[in-house]
Amino acid sequence: MTEFNSDFRRADGRALDEMRKVTITRGFTDNPAGSVLVTFGNTRVMCTASVEQSVPRFKRDSGEGWLTAEYSMLPASTHERMPRESMKGKVKGRTHEISRLIGRSLRAAVDLKELGENTINIDCDVLQADGGTRTASITGAYVALADALTYLHAAGAVPGTPLKAPVAAVSVGIIDGRVCLDLPYEEDSRAEVDLNVVMTAEGKFVEIQGTGEEGTFDRVQLNQMLDSAEKGLRELIAVQQEVLRAPYPGKLP
Amino acid sequence: MTEFNSDFRRADGRALDEMRKVTITRGFTDNPAGSVLVTFGNTRVMCTASVEQSVPRFKRDSGEGWLTAEYSMLPASTHERMPRESMKGKVKGRTHEISRLIGRSLRAAVDLKELGENTINIDCDVLQADGGTRTASITGAYVALADALTYLHAAGAVPGTPLKAPVAAVSVGIIDGRVCLDLPYEEDSRAEVDLNVVMTAEGKFVEIQGTGEEGTFDRVQLNQMLDSAEKGLRELIAVQQEVLRAPYPGKLP
Amino acid sequence: MTEFNSDFRRADGRALDEMRKVTITRGFTDNPAGSVLVTFGNTRVMCTASVEQSVPRFKRDSGEGWLTAEYSMLPASTHERMPRESMKGKVKGRTHEISRLIGRSLRAAVDLKELGENTINIDCDVLQADGGTRTASITGAYVALADALTYLHAAGAVPGTPLKAPVAAVSVGIIDGRVCLDLPYEEDSRAEVDLNVVMTAEGKFVEIQGTGEEGTFDRVQLNQMLDSAEKGLRELIAVQQEVLRAPYPGKLP
Amino acid sequence: MTEFNSDFRRADGRALDEMRKVTITRGFTDNPAGSVLVTFGNTRVMCTASVEQSVPRFKRDSGEGWLTAEYSMLPASTHERMPRESMKGKVKGRTHEISRLIGRSLRAAVDLKELGENTINIDCDVLQADGGTRTASITGAYVALADALTYLHAAGAVPGTPLKAPVAAVSVGIIDGRVCLDLPYEEDSRAEVDLNVVMTAEGKFVEIQGTGEEGTFDRVQLNQMLDSAEKGLRELIAVQQEVLRAPYPGKLP
Amino acid sequence: MTEFNSDFRRADGRALDEMRKVTITRGFTDNPAGSVLVTFGNTRVMCTASVEQSVPRFKRDSGEGWLTAEYSMLPASTHERMPRESMKGKVKGRTHEISRLIGRSLRAAVDLKELGENTINIDCDVLQADGGTRTASITGAYVALADALTYLHAAGAVPGTPLKAPVAAVSVGIIDGRVCLDLPYEEDSRAEVDLNVVMTAEGKFVEIQGTGEEGTFDRVQLNQMLDSAEKGLRELIAVQQEVLRAPYPGKLP
Amino acid sequence: MTEFNSDFRRADGRALDEMRKVTITRGFTDNPAGSVLVTFGNTRVMCTASVEQSVPRFKRDSGEGWLTAEYSMLPASTHERMPRESMKGKVKGRTHEISRLIGRSLRAAVDLKELGENTINIDCDVLQADGGTRTASITGAYVALADALTYLHAAGAVPGTPLKAPVAAVSVGIIDGRVCLDLPYEEDSRAEVDLNVVMTAEGKFVEIQGTGEEGTFDRVQLNQMLDSAEKGLRELIAVQQEVLRAPYPGKLP
Repeated sequence: MTEFNSDFRRADGRALDEMRKVTITRGFTDNPAGSVLVTFGNTRVMCTASVEQSVPRFKRDSGEGWLTAEYSMLPASTHERMPRESMKGKVKGRTHEISRLIGRSLRAAVDLKELGENTINIDCDVLQADGGTRTASITGAYVALADALTYLHAAGAVPGTPLKAPVAAVSVGIIDGRVCLDLPYEEDSRAEVDLNVVMTAEGKFVEIQGTGEEGTFDRVQLNQMLDSAEKGLRELIAVQQEVLRAPYPGKLP
Repeated sequence: MTEFNSDFRRADGRALDEMRKVTITRGFTDNPAGSVLVTFGNTRVMCTASVEQSVPRFKRDSGEGWLTAEYSMLPASTHERMPRESMKGKVKGRTHEISRLIGRSLRAAVDLKELGENTINIDCDVLQADGGTRTASITGAYVALADALTYLHAAGAVPGTPLKAPVAAVSVGIIDGRVCLDLPYEEDSRAEVDLNVVMTAEGKFVEIQGTGEEGTFDRVQLNQMLDSAEKGLRELIAVQQEVLRAPYPGKLP
Repeated sequence: MTEFNSDFRRADGRALDEMRKVTITRGFTDNPAGSVLVTFGNTRVMCTASVEQSVPRFKRDSGEGWLTAEYSMLPASTHERMPRESMKGKVKGRTHEISRLIGRSLRAAVDLKELGENTINIDCDVLQADGGTRTASITGAYVALADALTYLHAAGAVPGTPLKAPVAAVSVGIIDGRVCLDLPYEEDSRAEVDLNVVMTAEGKFVEIQGTGEEGTFDRVQLNQMLDSAEKGLRELIAVQQEVLRAPYPGKLP
Repeated sequence: MTEFNSDFRRADGRALDEMRKVTITRGFTDNPAGSVLVTFGNTRVMCTASVEQSVPRFKRDSGEGWLTAEYSMLPASTHERMPRESMKGKVKGRTHEISRLIGRSLRAAVDLKELGENTINIDCDVLQADGGTRTASITGAYVALADALTYLHAAGAVPGTPLKAPVAAVSVGIIDGRVCLDLPYEEDSRAEVDLNVVMTAEGKFVEIQGTGEEGTFDRVQLNQMLDSAEKGLRELIAVQQEVLRAPYPGKLP
Repeated sequence: MTEFNSDFRRADGRALDEMRKVTITRGFTDNPAGSVLVTFGNTRVMCTASVEQSVPRFKRDSGEGWLTAEYSMLPASTHERMPRESMKGKVKGRTHEISRLIGRSLRAAVDLKELGENTINIDCDVLQADGGTRTASITGAYVALADALTYLHAAGAVPGTPLKAPVAAVSVGIIDGRVCLDLPYEEDSRAEVDLNVVMTAEGKFVEIQGTGEEGTFDRVQLNQMLDSAEKGLRELIAVQQEVLRAPYPGKLP
Repeated sequence: MTEFNSDFRRADGRALDEMRKVTITRGFTDNPAGSVLVTFGNTRVMCTASVEQSVPRFKRDSGEGWLTAEYSMLPASTHERMPRESMKGKVKGRTHEISRLIGRSLRAAVDLKELGENTINIDCDVLQADGGTRTASITGAYVALADALTYLHAAGAVPGTPLKAPVAAVSVGIIDGRVCLDLPYEEDSRAEVDLNVVMTAEGKFVEIQGTGEEGTFDRVQLNQMLDSAEKGLRELIAVQQEVLRAPYPGKLP
């Protein structure tokens, strides 16, 4: 890892540790209690948080709430149209895997005891995919969750203050031996190593998932990737905090 | 039908034969050849037309193309979140019914012989639902189709000029005995009769579907509803023609 | 539409506005409360109405009943055997669409409040298909429904008199520019326009579904088709009324 | 087993080894090459044999044909309506088990080499169920198969003479210690032992399935049951042979 | 059947009426109340009996228990790997058929009234398949059932003494006209006739299933096969009784 | 993290960084080319590697092979019996997630170009579950893979030498603030943080998945967990290398 081709350049001209342009729009749609459009460059995900004043059977009479998440790509979100999972009657393994990751990550942002017996359903629907759809989903869903909890609180349905500090996620990869932050599709598909990091505003990890299918990685590289990820995550959390400074975008009950 | 309560008013203040505000945005996303966001008031549908340079088995070696359509509501598009069909492993009858209506309607807008052995996949994904999602879908999908055919033509993949005159759709209903155009959800759910009309720019019907589950209707009422629908449809077709005057919104091959 | 080939003839020699031979046999099978075999020419459908003294969850404690319908074609009912939907694990869109049409149409023939908390399950199983299976289904199912309500009444399970006036259905199409009534398969497959009309004995429409996939149609043609349909419907309703004059065909409780 | 209540009587007054009334109607419907309505008392099954001039993959280029069978009960065929398997998206174990039994039994009646690369699809759809649906299905399906092979032969599509001697099936059970032939539902549901026997006209067994869920049985009882079954089977085979003496009921190619 | 080739030999050198080596290992795994590994030659099946202190809906408040069984082959249990049924989303007919046979056979070994409102779930998972997997499953599952009932009894959850006398199963077939006991895969696949016999320790039949797809069989052959089967079954029951003489292999509650 | 309760003890008496007893048995079953039973304490998994001399469509004519993996728990492998996924018709998200992890990990142990157009199907079926089923699966599957490649090589079907250095996996968690290696179920269910590490014999990471659903973790803790995991992984790889020193356990082609 000592010598690189000195003219390594990212296709979009970014520095190695530079995020794509990130935007988070609250109140993207009106029906769910929290609704956000998040963009990481060309990746666009609609993240919603819907509330239900009840809990699934395994939480009944526990005094605790629950949060669950579903992720899906619209058929035309990718370059080649993908078959619609509902029409095939089967959900792909990748969809399940990402839905579960989003659920675990967002449960780290909510105190289920403080939530009381309410359920939050997170939906992340990818309108346009260009890499990083799972990390954009988690980052946007936190903001939708915050809005949904504000809504539940205004409805007098939450016993405590369930929202914890922001949780965001970013991907980082190794391409031609270089650590690159926030990979678009073109980079992701040729990365030797791919690491997704979910972190709280306190700088603690919620989840790290590193995969070296096209290569492997050692402890030094892992630490370099974590350094880069942390830089991106601090920026993402700043965006989350910034957009949440404005009042609830819809009508409170 | 002779005497009405003289102070009948629609909740949103519209005249009986007045459309909601309609917008059609081309180039809404980048990956599909045609991508449109259509809004009828608070109803918002993403309509895409993806192209495939091949045909399904039953059209192979026929020299003709094919067009198929799928409709879906995002789980959080409605006031109460709906379960995701892919997770239930089953597509609801309503979804099937609307997908088939959209497919038939759009096939009336394309000459399959002129299309050659290409397939157009229409996807209509409802981001926000407030009544009229099927009619907005058809109206928006025509514009996405037009863009997709422009793209295919630029790619040299279309033997002829397959696009026919615009096709649009609108709903009309009878509420408290009055014929009302373009029903939002609140009106739709209490209408005695509900009629969806799909029409071409030449003023010919492609499809009419009238249902009187909460009531029935006679020939006079049918003609009144068709009059109202035609007025709305001429306005919708004018919007379609207007937005299609601008050049293709993306990069042609 | 002014000049026709003067020697236009229907394959089966019928006049343009002549129905095929229609028969309705009550008490076709013994187990369901209502069981009917209906034939429109070579089309044969077994229509049953089964009763359940309870209602689905969404109607519980409403004091109202419910009616639902399922349509299916036996695999060997068509010229080419069709795969059995249960073996494929999927119901086709067409099946869903027709089941829903039958359900809506028959609900127009029953007063759900008068029915009390009972459920009627309509099953229409096509034994032999030669066009018009959905219209034969609706026409036959009304008679099965009438018998089932007689049975429920005799069992002391119905609070009121839920049966409304007869509902029947017929198809009409445009072939080579001519309006033809009650299309067999051979005509249906080459019709430019196809209209299904569901009407009550009072001459009110319950449902009209017109499709012009192979062509389009204008208001004049629509009215011609409705005229022809009404003639057929009056004949069908006369058959329904005639066969219902005989007493209940089975053993009452 | 030595002493019986001397006034044991079957509910329908039959002798212990007496069959219910059996009828086999050829040409029941027109589309399949073979179509039969078979009745064993109140049990009524529509059995069809459809032909396909090709074979499934595992028989391709083998020079041999194939025969497969599907059994299904219409939802309203039973006293209590059963849910439709296509709507549940799952086929029950009992359905699978009977379909496989019918397939194996009918393959004993056809020489697959003489059939050449053709496929026979047997469908047995129960219109009304009163016990013995699987045995009626096999008995009726043989006749449908015979007609289908006559049709294929007339079409010049069969290289040899594939039809073998008749195959029929009957049930026999032990009720209150007595061997009873051809059980209707009421007897079947309280039999201690239930035996289904499939036999050829040469008196050879194709399949025997004996179940003693409510009791067990010894070799003596087995032989008594087989004696009774053979008597019934000879009568059934006589009916098959009798009805097949008439010419093919439809139009040959 | 009078003259045979005098040098007929079974591939594994066994006499015609000789069983393969049979072993039954109790306490094969620790979690279920009964867990057994059974081997018939190279066939190896893990049979477990899990207990649930409740019953399915149709047995609720009956005072009786229930027993149900599921059979499955691991994908790599056969020479050619088989697709996993869970991944295909469909259970094969053969799997259903065998699961039902095991359930019926084991219900003959338990008195459901004495069991009280408890459920026994039998699982038979084939680790290695070499013919006779269904008969090995039944034979091993009886031992797992016995252990599960011992466990339930020690837990004070069984009102009576539900275990009945041993039930075992064996296959017998006709190969080149000779009756052979306990067929391995190689023999099973070329047998003219195949008979599975389930019998109790009292020598009564619970189930017999004979199939002559490649041939047929007469009464004489049936009796020869039953003689051979009985010999094997007595040996199997001796093994069951022998292994059950040792105390419960795990920790009782 | 500075002060711990000095008498912290693991339930099974192990030191914090001590593995459970690990065994790997080759030639566990005979049919697949590679078949291994792996145990980590009470966790027992059957890992098989089946070979197919062809590739899935997306690899055809690429000159490269493919490896895919499926993981499943037998219903009675857990303390409470779990419903069988094949009977529910749906694969759970957790099953998909682990199957994908095993597939990615094992693909890191094989050079797909050297493999040529062959497919390896890995099946990991959990016979008994006590935590660490996914890590035991990966560790055992490597050995099954090695055997399968030896078999393919002996069959002359592999162009090169596809097997790479050993890949093993282990879990590590934080319990009451302490880093513990190789968690059994009881520890896993109350761990604050759970990390699965997949590593090659060269000490490079293939995959790391850390989850802090019940807590979060910082960089220091991550490094402590990785240290502990590496110790366990070196021991596992030694076991793999040791057992692979013996010759192929079955019959080579």
